[in-house]
Amino acid sequence: MSSILRRVLHTAFNRPYSKPTHSCGELNATHAGSNVVLAGCILPERKISNRLSFFPIKDFSGTTQLVVRRDNHDQPVLSSLSRVPVESSVLINGRVSVRPTKDRRPSPTGDVEVHVDSFTVLNPAAPVLPFYPSDDQAIVNDELRARFRYLDLRRTALANNIRQRSHVSRLVRDALHTEGFLEVETPLLLKSSPEGAREFLVPSRLSQSDTPLFYSLPQSPQQPKQLLICSGAIDKYFQFAKCFRDEDGRKDRQPEFTQIDLEMAYVAWGPHPNAHNNPWRIGGHEVRAVIESLMGNIWHNVQGIRLPSSFNVITYAEAMARYGSDKPDTRFALEIQNITSLLPHHHQSSLANLGQVLETLAIRRSENLPFVRADDQYQLTDEPTVTRIVLTSTNLLTWLCNLVSPAVDPEHHISLNNVLKVNVGDTLYVSRRHAAPKGGATPLGRIRTQLAESAQNLGVSDVILIVSWLPHLVPGDYVPPAYPHLFTHHPFTAPMWQDITAMYDGRIDEVRGQHYDLVLNGTEIGGGSVRVHDAAMQEYVFSQVLQLDESEKASFDHLLQALKCGAPPHGGIALGFDRLMSILCNTQSIRDVIAFPKTGAGTDPLFKSPATVTNDVLSQYGIQGIRT
Amino acid sequence: MSSILRRVLHTAFNRPYSKPTHSCGELNATHAGSNVVLAGCILPERKISNRLSFFPIKDFSGTTQLVVRRDNHDQPVLSSLSRVPVESSVLINGRVSVRPTKDRRPSPTGDVEVHVDSFTVLNPAAPVLPFYPSDDQAIVNDELRARFRYLDLRRTALANNIRQRSHVSRLVRDALHTEGFLEVETPLLLKSSPEGAREFLVPSRLSQSDTPLFYSLPQSPQQPKQLLICSGAIDKYFQFAKCFRDEDGRKDRQPEFTQIDLEMAYVAWGPHPNAHNNPWRIGGHEVRAVIESLMGNIWHNVQGIRLPSSFNVITYAEAMARYGSDKPDTRFALEIQNITSLLPHHHQSSLANLGQVLETLAIRRSENLPFVRADDQYQLTDEPTVTRIVLTSTNLLTWLCNLVSPAVDPEHHISLNNVLKVNVGDTLYVSRRHAAPKGGATPLGRIRTQLAESAQNLGVSDVILIVSWLPHLVPGDYVPPAYPHLFTHHPFTAPMWQDITAMYDGRIDEVRGQHYDLVLNGTEIGGGSVRVHDAAMQEYVFSQVLQLDESEKASFDHLLQALKCGAPPHGGIALGFDRLMSILCNTQSIRDVIAFPKTGAGTDPLFKSPATVTNDVLSQYGIQGIRT
Repeated sequence: MSSILRRVLHTAFNRPYSKPTHSCGELNATHAGSNVVLAGCILPERKISNRLSFFPIKDFSGTTQLVVRRDNHDQPVLSSLSRVPVESSVLINGRVSVRPTKDRRPSPTGDVEVHVDSFTVLNPAAPVLPFYPSDDQAIVNDELRARFRYLDLRRTALANNIRQRSHVSRLVRDALHTEGFLEVETPLLLKSSPEGAREFLVPSRLSQSDTPLFYSLPQSPQQPKQLLICSGAIDKYFQFAKCFRDEDGRKDRQPEFTQIDLEMAYVAWGPHPNAHNNPWRIGGHEVRAVIESLMGNIWHNVQGIRLPSSFNVITYAEAMARYGSDKPDTRFALEIQNITSLLPHHHQSSLANLGQVLETLAIRRSENLPFVRADDQYQLTDEPTVTRIVLTSTNLLTWLCNLVSPAVDPEHHISLNNVLKVNVGDTLYVSRRHAAPKGGATPLGRIRTQLAESAQNLGVSDVILIVSWLPHLVPGDYVPPAYPHLFTHHPFTAPMWQDITAMYDGRIDEVRGQHYDLVLNGTEIGGGSVRVHDAAMQEYVFSQVLQLDESEKASFDHLLQALKCGAPPHGGIALGFDRLMSILCNTQSIRDVIAFPKTGAGTDPLFKSPATVTNDVLSQYGIQGIRT
Repeated sequence: MSSILRRVLHTAFNRPYSKPTHSCGELNATHAGSNVVLAGCILPERKISNRLSFFPIKDFSGTTQLVVRRDNHDQPVLSSLSRVPVESSVLINGRVSVRPTKDRRPSPTGDVEVHVDSFTVLNPAAPVLPFYPSDDQAIVNDELRARFRYLDLRRTALANNIRQRSHVSRLVRDALHTEGFLEVETPLLLKSSPEGAREFLVPSRLSQSDTPLFYSLPQSPQQPKQLLICSGAIDKYFQFAKCFRDEDGRKDRQPEFTQIDLEMAYVAWGPHPNAHNNPWRIGGHEVRAVIESLMGNIWHNVQGIRLPSSFNVITYAEAMARYGSDKPDTRFALEIQNITSLLPHHHQSSLANLGQVLETLAIRRSENLPFVRADDQYQLTDEPTVTRIVLTSTNLLTWLCNLVSPAVDPEHHISLNNVLKVNVGDTLYVSRRHAAPKGGATPLGRIRTQLAESAQNLGVSDVILIVSWLPHLVPGDYVPPAYPHLFTHHPFTAPMWQDITAMYDGRIDEVRGQHYDLVLNGTEIGGGSVRVHDAAMQEYVFSQVLQLDESEKASFDHLLQALKCGAPPHGGIALGFDRLMSILCNTQSIRDVIAFPKTGAGTDPLFKSPATVTNDVLSQYGIQGIRT
């Protein structure tokens, strides 16, 4: 550190310094002539001429241009300010002036500059930093950015995401409080299930017959929130809930994440009585109304967009048939077509006997240009059960023959091509699959998603959709202690009331659940359900539907007991706040909307976690490492 | 379950039920004549006469009286409603009527009653419940209440605390957002220090050379929040932060708790330049202003009380001298008096040579009646270094002689008694202690606190106080990785600027820290400091003041590195939200302001945590139980 810096630094420490009078980002022409005090990071000097230098100064609110002229009076200021390392915190005393018209910039403070009278270095940066966040040109690798996250957070784009996240959380809380919701904190040190899969454990210093005891971190506050509503203390609960999932790293997953979690008492068990044409055929429309209003509020305030007051509702069966996905991206029309009924009768019967259907996804040159280009470029062939056919004058009337036997005659091809509106040059993806869809996507659905991800210039705008009427539960759906899917299929979802008899009759495949997913642009950002509130029904679901054994059921004792205390009917939803923010901020990854994220592998290069622990510490918890 | 219940239940399941039109707690005379639909828990029937029964119905908002008359028309309703188990969830269709004047009650809905036309049982309670929350007379043991917390939460008082907690959190967030603070979430899976004391560990499935790796749960977001401010992305940060501390159970501690955590960039390092008589002699007055405004806002809105706009500030030295405590309860005047200077000169010199002082706490019959009664009753003698003397006509002029030698003559006793304003019948607690106080309380301070806790009818109102100017750090203050005290003494606190030279000269005992505690009615509810922002100074504190070794220092590498990037000067505070709510709700324990608390031993009787985990699960984490 140079002696001049040591001196100004000493001055800064040993004297109270003046308070900044303005933020760097708020100065404009109305401040012309004012004396101001600014605090911020000093950015690289731009020498405009031998007589003039610019130094941008930046704080949380923006950047202002500082000006120092090389005349006799300014000489000492300029020579010392030039020596302050970039990114140092400085305090500037100066005077605002309006720039000549030709020098104005379109940035927020672009009309003004601040002539520096004097300055104090509050904290000098090291002469060389790992990288320079103000340098947009430098390519900095992800590992370095993660390790020096506090420097990376100085980048305006990333800082804006973190600030936007706070704004949206405020908006959501305000909206929910206004609708009578109360925020209640639920425990993070919760019960560890004996199976323990996917939960993070927390060793305790308590033990039972010399066996160490563990808490676990919740994957969601599902049980506490249901117990809270069962208590009747609260009729509308919400929480920005910290959740944890110990699973192998994935692109867009974090071991810890945040949910906007809601639950409401006295939700209906059936459709609104006056809404005969309403596609929402289940209960819980109170929850739907809250979510539609909340999302509308966010989009209006953050994006300046008016969403429709009522979101489209599609059933799981329809979503799988038309889009091949339980979280369809309906921003573009590209739809899957089931061509089984267009085949000759004997083909129809043999498919029916196998319980199968034949589907196509057509990429038409006449209408799907972005998809045509993506298809030409990528020629997707990695789905083993999907055949990709480019129609030519040679195969136009024979393309089905390689897929089904006996061969299909040209007349059938002609009518099929007419129905599909395809011609020479178009691409057909053809797939044979089980008629009853399962899981999250069909093979053609995956092709459709890949094409959309590769297609450029789709020119789409946000679409929010509700997927509803999902299959209820079948044995094996319950992967203890958690949910095979982020939000769906927990064992507390109520069956549709029309299907209760089927459920009690053991026709479990026919039972649909009172479940809803919120899908935004093809990403599932939330899910919820109307819950079972009848203890006998919940016990039946555990024993007869999911076929849990006694010890598995025992971990739900408190819930069954709470239902038996006259719990009100209830339902709720949870929204993934990280994903929602990632979509709102248009980032590649949820890591860009989290202040201190972990890597895909679950490590934290900044805090260097996880880390080793000594045996002495472990022994307090009655545990030790397994020697290999 | 009776068949009639099964039938109504079936009805409730199989049909959408009407939405409640009103909350039970909102009905009043303006609703007279309206048809209403109410949903809630049914409470025990009160048979007023052979012809009339009352059933209170309760929801989150309050209780309304339902009326059923035993006439021909109502007979079926009454006989079935009488058979619904208490605490069942019911849906009532009825008509509001105003009570005759003589029957009105002072409760919020006491002017009206609802005549029941029909009802639906939404969920019947079991015929016998573990206890009945509506029964104020029954004494229910704590263990049962904890195990069936969802029933206990039906008690109005407890439910109100949980609701009040939500209101206060909203108030705090609104106030802080309005002042430009942004809420940022920081990681909960953080770095485990090698020492690991007092931290909860979280095993990960990652390992390093076959050694298992662990995260730890944070005791506070101290390091992440400082790094955030160092980044410059945010100038005013706050968070309702989940914190964890693994320590042996105590009356008013929970293994997980919530802090209102703040940090601000560019806080001053010295007193306000225009405030010569201001007792706030350190930096960070920006933080002080935020807290005073915030607390004033809470007290005004929640308690209807105007707090002084500026809280009293007392130094640690003065608090220890006058009240014998670093968190003095100044709601009452009872003060400790140092009588060293009133002793004969040779006693003064010998005390000075020993570095000691002689102090008294006088309980005067003439003025401290509640304390006199407490003293008479408890005759506190459990402090070994304190002598309790009841003044009598015999010992009035000799009482000091048993405490110091050589004997003190009667003339000195007369003048001393005059200064102390004591006479026959008064009690004196006398203590000899080291002149430089250490830790949280002196022996007389503990006596004073015990007397105050025992005294009845003190008739005091809330007093908030700031204790400031604490001793900085000395070797051994740093108990890795945490803080010997809830909030104080972490290694990032800046020295007072007047004492920087003393610190660098190695006169560490003379250095005072830029630290402040917020004390409410003798309870520490918050603490904070101005932080060191200069990397060289922080390194000096680690190495020379705290004498950490290289490996201990290594765990702070990221902080030192962040300071070297030109971090702005910063400071902050953290408030204990559970304690604050406990004081606001006037509860005996913080457990009464937490929805699902743990016992003093750290167990959760509701969720039955912590619990055992199978060896299979543990082995995924590379750990096993230690066999004994």
